[in-house]
Amino acid sequence: MILEVAPLQIRAGQSAKFELAFAHAQQIIEAMPGYLSHSLQRCIERDNEYILLVEWDTLAAHEIGFRGSPQYQQWKALLHHFYEPMPRVSHYAAVPFAETLTSTR
Amino acid sequence: MILEVAPLQIRAGQSAKFELAFAHAQQIIEAMPGYLSHSLQRCIERDNEYILLVEWDTLAAHEIGFRGSPQYQQWKALLHHFYEPMPRVSHYAAVPFAETLTSTR
Repeated sequence: MILEVAPLQIRAGQSAKFELAFAHAQQIIEAMPGYLSHSLQRCIERDNEYILLVEWDTLAAHEIGFRGSPQYQQWKALLHHFYEPMPRVSHYAAVPFAETLTSTR
Repeated sequence: MILEVAPLQIRAGQSAKFELAFAHAQQIIEAMPGYLSHSLQRCIERDNEYILLVEWDTLAAHEIGFRGSPQYQQWKALLHHFYEPMPRVSHYAAVPFAETLTSTR
């Protein structure tokens, strides 16, 4: 299992619109092969910042399966115009014996 | 529920020692009031980088309860010398209707 982490900075004043767009966009990733779960969280310290966490079966499910799909173009059209700058997305693998968090699936 | 996110950069060559130290240190946070769950994850794209996710009942459980405790001094002594630079720790609250990830507790 791979954790995708995307720290998101949203254009000033656009947070409410971004959250609405995300509520729609999340249905896109939820339907992708290899998708396991996700969480969008709003930053307490800094306005207009979020973090998106997505669990995937494999790195390829995200980087090849999702990013290479027609659905990714819809995802981009819904969300990317809110980002300033574009986020640096990273991937992580759990360190054995160093977690108690698990997904629902 | 609050999510603490700490992106960690570990001094070159110290990752194995850091993981061992973390396996010990995690017992400290697990015993703190208001602690819910945690996950330490290793970055796939960049050597020596990790992300630590900790779920707390409240922001105060982390910032006042844990950071103000004697146990935090043990945590620091075990872990902080591995970090270069010191991490910027942020806190997040889930956006309603925008997650499927949940904790085990």
